[in-house]
Amino acid sequence: MYTEKYLFDFTRQVFIRMGCSNADADMISAVFLAAELRGLPSHGMIRIKDYYQLWKAGRINVRPDVRVVHETPGTAVVDGDGAVGMVAATRSMEIAMEKAIKVGTGWVSTRNSNHYGIAGYYAMMALKHDMIGLSMTNANPLVAPTFSVSPMLGTNPIAVAIPAGKQPPFVADFATTPIARGKLAVAEKKGEKVPLGFVQDKDGVPTDDPAILKSGGSMLTLGGDYIHGSHKGFCLSAIVDIFSAVFSGANFGPFVPPSVAYLPVLDRKVGEGTGHFFGAMRIDAFQEAAAFKASMDEWIVTFRSARPADGHEKVIIPGDPEREKEEKIRAEGISVLPAIAKEMKEIADELGVGFAV
Amino acid sequence: MYTEKYLFDFTRQVFIRMGCSNADADMISAVFLAAELRGLPSHGMIRIKDYYQLWKAGRINVRPDVRVVHETPGTAVVDGDGAVGMVAATRSMEIAMEKAIKVGTGWVSTRNSNHYGIAGYYAMMALKHDMIGLSMTNANPLVAPTFSVSPMLGTNPIAVAIPAGKQPPFVADFATTPIARGKLAVAEKKGEKVPLGFVQDKDGVPTDDPAILKSGGSMLTLGGDYIHGSHKGFCLSAIVDIFSAVFSGANFGPFVPPSVAYLPVLDRKVGEGTGHFFGAMRIDAFQEAAAFKASMDEWIVTFRSARPADGHEKVIIPGDPEREKEEKIRAEGISVLPAIAKEMKEIADELGVGFAV
Repeated sequence: MYTEKYLFDFTRQVFIRMGCSNADADMISAVFLAAELRGLPSHGMIRIKDYYQLWKAGRINVRPDVRVVHETPGTAVVDGDGAVGMVAATRSMEIAMEKAIKVGTGWVSTRNSNHYGIAGYYAMMALKHDMIGLSMTNANPLVAPTFSVSPMLGTNPIAVAIPAGKQPPFVADFATTPIARGKLAVAEKKGEKVPLGFVQDKDGVPTDDPAILKSGGSMLTLGGDYIHGSHKGFCLSAIVDIFSAVFSGANFGPFVPPSVAYLPVLDRKVGEGTGHFFGAMRIDAFQEAAAFKASMDEWIVTFRSARPADGHEKVIIPGDPEREKEEKIRAEGISVLPAIAKEMKEIADELGVGFAV
Repeated sequence: MYTEKYLFDFTRQVFIRMGCSNADADMISAVFLAAELRGLPSHGMIRIKDYYQLWKAGRINVRPDVRVVHETPGTAVVDGDGAVGMVAATRSMEIAMEKAIKVGTGWVSTRNSNHYGIAGYYAMMALKHDMIGLSMTNANPLVAPTFSVSPMLGTNPIAVAIPAGKQPPFVADFATTPIARGKLAVAEKKGEKVPLGFVQDKDGVPTDDPAILKSGGSMLTLGGDYIHGSHKGFCLSAIVDIFSAVFSGANFGPFVPPSVAYLPVLDRKVGEGTGHFFGAMRIDAFQEAAAFKASMDEWIVTFRSARPADGHEKVIIPGDPEREKEEKIRAEGISVLPAIAKEMKEIADELGVGFAV
């Protein structure tokens, strides 16, 4: 078990040794630790190695000039200058909120960035300012459009955070696929099959083999198959891709630069780096803030009071599971799998940072 | 077969006889006909009877004062004053676009409205102004949150329209359930079963009975079951409900006033009428317009060129099927089912409007 502070300081030191400024290393570490605390280790310490490898390959800029390249009172396009995704994304969300203060809402599309960690972190930045936050990003092309066998889309998550009053906030943060990619890797390591509706083979035949991505297979969009609405999942994933990359001038779809070693870096580019999209809406741009919060409380209480189906305890309000996990993890400490701790130790040794396995 | 003009004039006369202004009747008829032309008859002539019954029950205001009740430079809350949904919605989308002209984007949440027809119509209003359009609405409570048996949400559609250059626009318009409610009615009439993942019985047990809604059953959210991500469908449906109703002060979730006869009108209200949410974003708020369109063309061509799965001809770009249907229907005429034509004739006779069956 590690404390939040220990892993924060470790992550901070790793990125400082790579050359990041103290301020940027703080931003980056905050997102990595938020993933661990919210019980999403798939986006936590395990991803430090990905960034370390990108850095060694010269594919990230540790001293970026993150800047607005186009704007209106309510919108901006931000060029991340090849930054670590968390730096470009945090700054972009701040700009969205600055614009919302002035005109009610702010919308930022970001290009030339990299993997930004958990989408929900940026959406949640809005909460303490009494704003609704939105965050989405495109990602490694692993997902096929409905009726196709070509992996052209990422798991393209959407996060929406909405403040409440006495109730905890509503925080939705979900991939536009039935499952996250990490769950396939877990099933593969355990030697388990996965349900139909998650992946297909290279010819588009549904399969239960979680390792199928390594032999030309692809993930399916939310809905799983056409009968169950996979074309709606494709719409969602496409909207995330277009808002993140066509709006900003980033690479879209199959051209998103991979953040994992097993996907090739393509010669062809259609834009700059990875793309994100952020939104901030002041709650008092729609209702007087106290009325908004009271109404949102009533919404949450109404849905939390829904009658559970047989065999289920209660309806889950988006954000509940992660908040409950965070309370538990803050009390008990953060556990890191031995294989991940070993990777962290190797990186620590190479960079001359302390790390206790 | 009917011509567009014939059905437009019929619809217009029906709403004028109910007491609508000529201008409002034009707006209403345009949305009804768009549904028929785009091959979505479930939202076309078949719904005139629903409105006729709401009017007879005194539940719609045919001379509404649709007005802004709260605003910032980039946002507004519109009170529909009990209008026919198409009137409140068309005016709300116009306001969103007016705001986008000034500050880059405009966002309108609308209360005190009624059923607004096809979500895509309002999103597509933005296209000719070189804007991206968004439209969503809450609806009759028929859909249960994941792990619950309580029908508390509508099929809550999301529509997003994005302009392109040489390519036709991207137009996504989809319910946040695996299927539209109308498909259950069709299966029931044909005596067919439906696939698992569409509906559950009153205890939350999955069933293939399309008539189950009449005996306490409920529809499921996109994803179908928890394993396949129905909680993500719940997130989407909840976001639509909150943006449409909590933002505006409309009735949310189970309190949405029903537009169909078989759901009871509740005594308890938590707001005014049905709620919608609209967005407009100028494409040149993000990129110089020509560059945006060229990039969007490239996105569409890239995805249209995806390799089809065995047994499928091509990847479908959102908006393609409806556009192809519109070309065919414009050439061949609009067919109306005999049972619907009979209803229309009855309404025509009662109101003293001409209609040839």
